[in-house]
Amino acid sequence: MNFDSLEVGFDIPARVGMSEAEVFTPALILDLDALERNIIKMGDYARAHDMRHRVHGKMHKSVDAAKLQMRLGGAVGVCCQKVSEAEVFVRGGIPDVLISNEVRDLRMIDRLAQLPKRGAAVSVCVDGLENVAELSAAAQRHGTKLEILLEIDCGSGRCGVDDPAVAVRIAQAVVAADGLRFGGVQAYQGAMQHLETYAARQGKLDVAIAIVREVLAALEAAKIDVPLVTGGGTGSYPFETGSGVYNELQCGSYAFMDADYGRILDAQGQRIDQGEWHNALFVLSSVMSVAKPQQAVVDAGLKAMSMESGLPLVFGRGSVDYVEASDEHGTLSDPERQLRINDKLRLVPGHCDPTCNLHDWYVGMRNGVVERLWPVSARGKGF
Amino acid sequence: MNFDSLEVGFDIPARVGMSEAEVFTPALILDLDALERNIIKMGDYARAHDMRHRVHGKMHKSVDAAKLQMRLGGAVGVCCQKVSEAEVFVRGGIPDVLISNEVRDLRMIDRLAQLPKRGAAVSVCVDGLENVAELSAAAQRHGTKLEILLEIDCGSGRCGVDDPAVAVRIAQAVVAADGLRFGGVQAYQGAMQHLETYAARQGKLDVAIAIVREVLAALEAAKIDVPLVTGGGTGSYPFETGSGVYNELQCGSYAFMDADYGRILDAQGQRIDQGEWHNALFVLSSVMSVAKPQQAVVDAGLKAMSMESGLPLVFGRGSVDYVEASDEHGTLSDPERQLRINDKLRLVPGHCDPTCNLHDWYVGMRNGVVERLWPVSARGKGF
Repeated sequence: MNFDSLEVGFDIPARVGMSEAEVFTPALILDLDALERNIIKMGDYARAHDMRHRVHGKMHKSVDAAKLQMRLGGAVGVCCQKVSEAEVFVRGGIPDVLISNEVRDLRMIDRLAQLPKRGAAVSVCVDGLENVAELSAAAQRHGTKLEILLEIDCGSGRCGVDDPAVAVRIAQAVVAADGLRFGGVQAYQGAMQHLETYAARQGKLDVAIAIVREVLAALEAAKIDVPLVTGGGTGSYPFETGSGVYNELQCGSYAFMDADYGRILDAQGQRIDQGEWHNALFVLSSVMSVAKPQQAVVDAGLKAMSMESGLPLVFGRGSVDYVEASDEHGTLSDPERQLRINDKLRLVPGHCDPTCNLHDWYVGMRNGVVERLWPVSARGKGF
Repeated sequence: MNFDSLEVGFDIPARVGMSEAEVFTPALILDLDALERNIIKMGDYARAHDMRHRVHGKMHKSVDAAKLQMRLGGAVGVCCQKVSEAEVFVRGGIPDVLISNEVRDLRMIDRLAQLPKRGAAVSVCVDGLENVAELSAAAQRHGTKLEILLEIDCGSGRCGVDDPAVAVRIAQAVVAADGLRFGGVQAYQGAMQHLETYAARQGKLDVAIAIVREVLAALEAAKIDVPLVTGGGTGSYPFETGSGVYNELQCGSYAFMDADYGRILDAQGQRIDQGEWHNALFVLSSVMSVAKPQQAVVDAGLKAMSMESGLPLVFGRGSVDYVEASDEHGTLSDPERQLRINDKLRLVPGHCDPTCNLHDWYVGMRNGVVERLWPVSARGKGF
């Protein structure tokens, strides 16, 4: 081992050409073959069904991943949740960026309204009249155009409106406002994405689609053109696609997968991580203690993975299970005593989005070798 | 409002002199009065009981907070969990740094062995013979001295040894190894810190202290001097202090508090956040949607707070509750409809350590005004 090159303070988890055993841990690693398969598959699906696909950049917060999704999967651009995320994607060259919820801090609205000057189409959601006026004032101040999507609450019960009369009033205000263009509606049902069975998810989407239809009918009656109806996630995209009303998907997790999504079942009753999608994201960890029989401790805990959706799965190690998490440690049961100090384990995190946000780098692996290092470009961008 | 100063890409959540209402959200804020009271109280306690206090820097990952704990609370230095964290503390001028668990990656051992050259006393735990040899080789390679603590598993069931004969063998190996100094033992019972009642926690510590005594007796019989017996957390420090065997505490969360610790009860049956300690850490969030009656949505979710230990508490807002978290949103019940768009809410996070690790800055407030900005110096330092 060449210690000379490992200067104090070196904090990038790998260098191109390293083997997986050499990666510093804990680290976020991407199986590039699996990632590319997922991206191509979803791209082919969207193309075959004549749907636009705006990939959800809040999941990976990576300009490089978004560009791969555009190149291999035909994605039209990204959505994200925060203005500071959108700034990263626009600066990184993503041409079409939607902030898929409301922005209410006047200073962040002002930053948002400046983004079109950098050459990107920029859109944002609204669910109130006052916000329309704020966005219009900011766009006029900067001489830019913002595209506005009316957010419909189609069952999540969070932001958005569900009363068609209110929807029409907001849409009319957008149409009448200087500096704004009415882009259509966003209707994302986030609360049903992780329901286990296909039928349960379909039932929730039937309700969502009915709400969207009702709003669209009211907008049509008010002679308001609705170019875009956008929504859909990894747990629901076949339903939006088949709805006849949506024309854009917003899937994110399909590309990386995680343990919580992996558990849901497809139409045939099979886990979606056993055929439909492949695990591409792992937290690589190392064994740091085997002082107890049939137990090992790894160096990845709550600061390396988000656990609110459950413990990580140990990938490809048979009887080894991750049974308890602490801040910097994971305790594993190892009934066959297969694990040794510094063994590397791939962990499938419970929930990909907040896990990616914990790290500064993606380590892209192919055939056991580090091929790429991508920054988590928008990590921590919360404003 | 002066928009000129809010250039695109400005990502520090506040400037000194701002009011709380002006802080960009979500942001980690510190109530400096409460923080100082906590630090002084624990410092006075340790001094009165003739205990050293090595504050746990893994909690806040902040050089500035550690220095305040040294200045106001008489802390002797910090402990932390990772070599890359220790590097930050040593570079920041903390004179005595313990890595309170094992380091097994040979490259990180090499980095660790270089740290004493920067003028700090550096110590680390071991629970295996092979690791002693690795540490000795690295210290000799760099001509430095590392202080080694034997880790005793006193009930957590994670790393560490509990067999006195094994403990003696490891301690003897340390004593005999070039480049190492045997510093004593670490015995931290992490698994009991959050048990609700004082009596339940005392019961677990009685067991822990008995294990430590047994190991200490074996070391004494082997004529091995044990200068330091270190351990203790916010949920257990009175027991280590009263044990007659420990001489150093390692408390961390007492300084900031969180919702999960706040729930545990003191000897009088009172929540420890209602007298013993004060909430000093909050995630400041803003209301971004009130589209639904008796509900508000704030801009702080799973990427602003760790939720595996429960949802955050809303501080000082009466009937308002945080009832559901998603990645970037929190849904609040607001039965009295008190909340308006852009209202700022202080949230007490469920678990302080992984919450602090999500942010880049602490915003220190006093009397409603931003007084200090501290970087989360070791955020994301996971190696």
